[in-house]
Amino acid sequence: RLATNVTKDHIHDAIIRKLDVKSLADSSSNTIRLADCGCAVGPNTFNAMQDLIEIVKHKYKSQCPNSQNPEFHVSFNDQSSNDFNTLFTSLPQEIHFFVAGVPGSFHKRLFPEKFLHLVHVSYALHWLSKVPEGLLDKNSPAWNKGRIHYAFAPEVVVKAYANQFAKDLERFLNNRAKEIVPGGMIIITNPSIPDGMPFSEIANGLMYNCMGTILYDMVKVGLLSEAQVDSFNLPIYACPPGEFGAVVERNGNFRIEVMGLTNPSPWLKGRINMPEYIKHVRAATESMFNKHFSYEVTEEMFRQLLERLEEINDKMVSCYRDGVQLFAVLQRL
Amino acid sequence: RLATNVTKDHIHDAIIRKLDVKSLADSSSNTIRLADCGCAVGPNTFNAMQDLIEIVKHKYKSQCPNSQNPEFHVSFNDQSSNDFNTLFTSLPQEIHFFVAGVPGSFHKRLFPEKFLHLVHVSYALHWLSKVPEGLLDKNSPAWNKGRIHYAFAPEVVVKAYANQFAKDLERFLNNRAKEIVPGGMIIITNPSIPDGMPFSEIANGLMYNCMGTILYDMVKVGLLSEAQVDSFNLPIYACPPGEFGAVVERNGNFRIEVMGLTNPSPWLKGRINMPEYIKHVRAATESMFNKHFSYEVTEEMFRQLLERLEEINDKMVSCYRDGVQLFAVLQRL
Repeated sequence: RLATNVTKDHIHDAIIRKLDVKSLADSSSNTIRLADCGCAVGPNTFNAMQDLIEIVKHKYKSQCPNSQNPEFHVSFNDQSSNDFNTLFTSLPQEIHFFVAGVPGSFHKRLFPEKFLHLVHVSYALHWLSKVPEGLLDKNSPAWNKGRIHYAFAPEVVVKAYANQFAKDLERFLNNRAKEIVPGGMIIITNPSIPDGMPFSEIANGLMYNCMGTILYDMVKVGLLSEAQVDSFNLPIYACPPGEFGAVVERNGNFRIEVMGLTNPSPWLKGRINMPEYIKHVRAATESMFNKHFSYEVTEEMFRQLLERLEEINDKMVSCYRDGVQLFAVLQRL
Repeated sequence: RLATNVTKDHIHDAIIRKLDVKSLADSSSNTIRLADCGCAVGPNTFNAMQDLIEIVKHKYKSQCPNSQNPEFHVSFNDQSSNDFNTLFTSLPQEIHFFVAGVPGSFHKRLFPEKFLHLVHVSYALHWLSKVPEGLLDKNSPAWNKGRIHYAFAPEVVVKAYANQFAKDLERFLNNRAKEIVPGGMIIITNPSIPDGMPFSEIANGLMYNCMGTILYDMVKVGLLSEAQVDSFNLPIYACPPGEFGAVVERNGNFRIEVMGLTNPSPWLKGRINMPEYIKHVRAATESMFNKHFSYEVTEEMFRQLLERLEEINDKMVSCYRDGVQLFAVLQRL
């Protein structure tokens, strides 16, 4: 649903305090329009939208105790290669909102002007629109040889990732600024990291580094060429709150209503169930590997990843102390 | 595209004369919203929407020569079992409108109140929402034993089909009436038949009757049971204009701006290319047969259908003289 309960409480609170549901509904035929950007195939996306609708209804009831609830119109957005057939056929039978699927990259315009009231984007903005410039260029100072990510990389590589993220976020905000009515909101959850902490100190950093080591070890035994690994970088960036806030403020279209870090796995005690963990990681990242490597290489990489992460299970657990989930509610000015 | 050119001219003309594009755009953030109900997978649906948009732009230019064109928002609607993945991935690269896919039956509500300006429904309303009551009931006067359609059937069977169509159309109009703004339009093309002409006199009547004969012949040679054919009826009704108009007027939510019959195949001369013809028929009706009969029975039925229709090719051609395509433009009051 809306990520962890702590996150949900913060978001709930910001909406209740700041969303003027009455005036939004009045200006749009009594309809509140929501979108989930980067929705994938559910059921998370339905549940998150359902949660948001309940919060908005609650607010509306308190603002207009004697009026009929507004109608809700929910757009599920993802790349046109997303499996919308599965998304649509797995919609709950009893659904109390109007549904649309919107194919396309959220780095482009997706909706008409002033169409949306609430946009939800959860664990989607950390996917960069492309591998940052310089990482693949032998002559660039940001050439990322020997790694597939910015974990454990020199500062110039981290900067290249950060710059690409800032550009992507800027573009996302500019497009949504056109589509969201004044007073409307963007609700964001995203992988993150405390300001100033190197990515090598969080669990995903250890994992991405492991992935790189495994791939380069496969080069040594001749399973794939060095050039193949050199030309691969994971386009994932976990933006710290300070940087995130700076981009939003520079953009100027939105006010940060609330922003913070939470721990996405506060319940984690003892050891990680590593096969389960790898299953989730694989579901989220496999397509990146499959586009670049053979199926056999990807298969072998994830097999070895399980072994190697089991060896550092304790270290992974201790990395989970930290808040590495960003939540933010931005209001359109 | 918008069916034949004759149809297109009539529709074009009605929109140019009667659609107040300026006031529609002014009242909705300069956005014109279209929907195609029963869109299937394209490319017809894109082309039809593109045609409509061009007409609307043309009208807007003449109403407001100095204003910026409105944005266009197009919803493609079909059952949630429709292949939206194919629809989305086959969208033209250069597309100048915002796209949404809307899963669900158009016999239910699909959009919020007063959301739409133009609705297109082409060759979709003739599909009944269910097999009419009584057709499958041995004790009903409308029991349709020996046939799979109302072609060559007694009046009571025709009436049962007509009643179901009227109910479905009524429901369609009621739902769209909520969703379409006053002044908005529904543009309809549908299989039809001249008022008073029996369905047995048009090409589709001959064909559906052939299908029934083939299936009952397969019963005789033991390929399937009589009960299996008795329990099958094609839920397709070609409503004549008089009946169609009567339902719209009784409904009262729309004014008929233009309505008429055209000949959908005015170019037809000599003989029909029957293998091509069967291919189209099969694409449109096969799923109905596959739901009820084995794959082998459906396969054999279409094989024999080709043979039998070749035998009456001349008769089929002469049936195509008549206007059997209804076009109508309805304006929301």
